[in-house]
Amino acid sequence: MEMDLLRDYHFGLHQLTEILGHACAVAVAKTYPLSILGKRQPTVLVVCGPYQNGCIGLACARYLRLFEYMPTVFYPKRSTQSPHLDFTVQCEKMDIPFLSYLPTEVQLINDAYNLVVDALLGPETELETVKEPFTNILLTLQGVKIPIASLDVPSGWDSDEGNICTINPNLLISLMAPKRCALGFSGTHLLAGRLLPYDIQKKYELNLPKFPSTACIIKLH
Amino acid sequence: MEMDLLRDYHFGLHQLTEILGHACAVAVAKTYPLSILGKRQPTVLVVCGPYQNGCIGLACARYLRLFEYMPTVFYPKRSTQSPHLDFTVQCEKMDIPFLSYLPTEVQLINDAYNLVVDALLGPETELETVKEPFTNILLTLQGVKIPIASLDVPSGWDSDEGNICTINPNLLISLMAPKRCALGFSGTHLLAGRLLPYDIQKKYELNLPKFPSTACIIKLH
Repeated sequence: MEMDLLRDYHFGLHQLTEILGHACAVAVAKTYPLSILGKRQPTVLVVCGPYQNGCIGLACARYLRLFEYMPTVFYPKRSTQSPHLDFTVQCEKMDIPFLSYLPTEVQLINDAYNLVVDALLGPETELETVKEPFTNILLTLQGVKIPIASLDVPSGWDSDEGNICTINPNLLISLMAPKRCALGFSGTHLLAGRLLPYDIQKKYELNLPKFPSTACIIKLH
Repeated sequence: MEMDLLRDYHFGLHQLTEILGHACAVAVAKTYPLSILGKRQPTVLVVCGPYQNGCIGLACARYLRLFEYMPTVFYPKRSTQSPHLDFTVQCEKMDIPFLSYLPTEVQLINDAYNLVVDALLGPETELETVKEPFTNILLTLQGVKIPIASLDVPSGWDSDEGNICTINPNLLISLMAPKRCALGFSGTHLLAGRLLPYDIQKKYELNLPKFPSTACIIKLH
């Protein structure tokens, strides 16, 4: 589906990442508005991996900053691909702090942040090949008590099969179209990214819901 | 200002165009919602030039299509720059029709469309050098009775000096920050594009208004 957009429609990776990162930040802000956050500061921990998801996480962090949140990024394995590099610079230049390590003591995370945005692994990640530092990060995230918002696929879930004993997010933000694993998800489920041409929706028989007015997200359940 | 974004913040032209095109479409849709359009079909004529404005117009047309409008693009002088080429393909592949000429009989335009989006000339256009086909298009647009929404600078206006006897739009959508000519504009004035880092706002002493919640546009007057 993304290949159709890139090849046939001449979308660029920067362009897609920007659209989806914006929509994810809107989804997070609508679900966890500034006014309901429990901590004194509107802190959000955004955990980014080296996959496309991680780059969308970086864009999401930038928009959260524009929406007056205080995002902190943890981005342990950096990709050398051009969108990742550029979106990293954009975060750094906007003075978004980057953590050099994730505390293993989960209480520190619970105390410091209102929520975690999980952009660690993506639908294309082959779970058998996942190793350090990701396995330990997943173990830490399993223990946190603050809400987790996962982008597209909760990290560690198989995008088709669903939950294979890993983190259990409160919010799932499906990107462009829900992946099969979302069927096994019982929390708040939003669809983000209103960009798919009708021909692609038809080709893949997506049966997407109708976004209201100019909204870039829609609540599925 | 844009140079800072491109050079220091590693923004790309595709990325900026996407953000601004989206915000313009939201501005148009909020000002002229589907429910108040007079014509049977939600038609919009989007007039694009070869400048950056025109490319934002193409992105705006694509989003208007996603928002259930029926945009038609008139794009008489095509740029060969990469964002223009890619954003044109995206419109064409989404079956947005392109006019091969603009009717000189303005009544045809008044009858066929609910409004015109003017992305013909931009703030960087040197007005002394403007010639055909633009002068004739401006003459036609001067005569239309349906509302005109101009992106950033009404075509034919000097971005600093203001109105030099040309079109008089009903809606002005300033991009990122109002240009000086907006001071002489008395219609509905929106600011679109929530992306400027605080450092840039400070550097150029922009004193931008505070966008509410996750909005990408804000009404100035």
